[in-house]
Amino acid sequence: MGEIAFYQDKFVGIDEKVVPIQERGHQFGDGIYEVVRVYGGVPFLLDEHLLRMEKSADALEMKLPYTTEKIKEIIHEALNRSNYTDADIYFQVTRGISARQHHYPEVPTVFSLTVRPAKAIDETKRQEGIGVLLVEDVRWLNCYIKSLNLLPNVMAKQKAMAGGYYEAIFQRDGIVTEGSSSNLFVVKDGQLFTHPATNRILHGITRAKVLELAAKLDIPVQEQEFDINFLHQGDEAFITSTSAEVLPIREIGELELPRTRPITDRLAEAFKDLYKVKN
Amino acid sequence: MGEIAFYQDKFVGIDEKVVPIQERGHQFGDGIYEVVRVYGGVPFLLDEHLLRMEKSADALEMKLPYTTEKIKEIIHEALNRSNYTDADIYFQVTRGISARQHHYPEVPTVFSLTVRPAKAIDETKRQEGIGVLLVEDVRWLNCYIKSLNLLPNVMAKQKAMAGGYYEAIFQRDGIVTEGSSSNLFVVKDGQLFTHPATNRILHGITRAKVLELAAKLDIPVQEQEFDINFLHQGDEAFITSTSAEVLPIREIGELELPRTRPITDRLAEAFKDLYKVKN
Repeated sequence: MGEIAFYQDKFVGIDEKVVPIQERGHQFGDGIYEVVRVYGGVPFLLDEHLLRMEKSADALEMKLPYTTEKIKEIIHEALNRSNYTDADIYFQVTRGISARQHHYPEVPTVFSLTVRPAKAIDETKRQEGIGVLLVEDVRWLNCYIKSLNLLPNVMAKQKAMAGGYYEAIFQRDGIVTEGSSSNLFVVKDGQLFTHPATNRILHGITRAKVLELAAKLDIPVQEQEFDINFLHQGDEAFITSTSAEVLPIREIGELELPRTRPITDRLAEAFKDLYKVKN
Repeated sequence: MGEIAFYQDKFVGIDEKVVPIQERGHQFGDGIYEVVRVYGGVPFLLDEHLLRMEKSADALEMKLPYTTEKIKEIIHEALNRSNYTDADIYFQVTRGISARQHHYPEVPTVFSLTVRPAKAIDETKRQEGIGVLLVEDVRWLNCYIKSLNLLPNVMAKQKAMAGGYYEAIFQRDGIVTEGSSSNLFVVKDGQLFTHPATNRILHGITRAKVLELAAKLDIPVQEQEFDINFLHQGDEAFITSTSAEVLPIREIGELELPRTRPITDRLAEAFKDLYKVKN
């Protein structure tokens, strides 16, 4: 019961010292990760997360240490041990343990995992919406890989939070890309806009689900680039992520957005129904 | 005697499991590092490396866990324990150990270090020069910070080595920036060219020393951007880094450079003299 961790083939204490200094995660950020939300004891959209992890691994020419079936087993075992019904499952794979060198060593990759209580967002915040801060997007150009090289994301989030904002929204040369740990959507004249799934953004699992839901709800979708001006003139805006789900934006820097958000509300509700139905 | 390591206030085995999963290095690459070369028992240009680490720490709003005096003590103690006279000292500082969240936790930063035998480059390679491969520079825009977010560097080095090249040279929009773990210089018509020390490159300690040496040797220097074409038409070219020192380039992809390298040779010799004089 409680927080659970797993490192390199066995369950370990979450604070246990299990990683050697010369692990590729620790010295290069040479690895990939996923975060899965558990609702009512069920890991939500687990297959989608595992498929994305395989894609990230391919992009980095990394071999996952286990089959996805085996990873699922570990996840379920960890969840059982934790006894949590609402949890965040974090798992990562690094290129392994090897004397430091830049090029890829021929060693087994290493899987690690933690299970912690879900960081649920309180209902007031969900109702009111969040404040976001525009930050320059200085990240590398392979943002579609869910890698451990998260320093620019971490720095952007810190800047936003230090200013009293909940999330940082990246803009590169005036084009709005996504959040530091979320994707971004804008509603304008009844249509939904979001950055196309190129190498400039992470291809969010929640983002993809929201696009599916929009299609079902007959909300027209434009996956296209837009600039800061367009964002500022949005009728509604929201972020999506595994932990945020569909979370409305109340203000962008000093600019307040309208308080009525009919499309955001429909999508947030429809998204909630996805995991409520499952349980 | 032998390889030595240090993690969070004490000496440990180099393969010892000392890092918990939720270390900022392991999960975010949220840290900085330096590599110092030891010649004849003396850490070379140690003050310069420590000064750069302080700059990297400032850029990431990280507080080093020790004074530079204390870091020097640890380095000397490690070197004594190893009994190596020619060694590579690697040290890094991460933002510390904390339950995973993007923004900066309020915890102590963590210092780690390894001492290993020097990766000396054999004399034949130094004489012949190396082959390099041009690779697209997809890195983030804060390359001046010597951070643990090294995935694009690692991927570029791997690509070069898989193709039989020694180093990858980055180009961004046609502008040649630097190597995956080195800086780049081109000699043309008796002048030395290198990318200016902006946020697009790492401000190499060896690079700075070479610029000083060039001034002393009355070799005119141009710190300015140049493109692939200019590199291809260079009379000479070389890379610099702590482990490479001044290392001539023999070929760029398929293109062979001239075999006589008067300026490279003078600089390589003058650089060697710096640490020979010290010992």
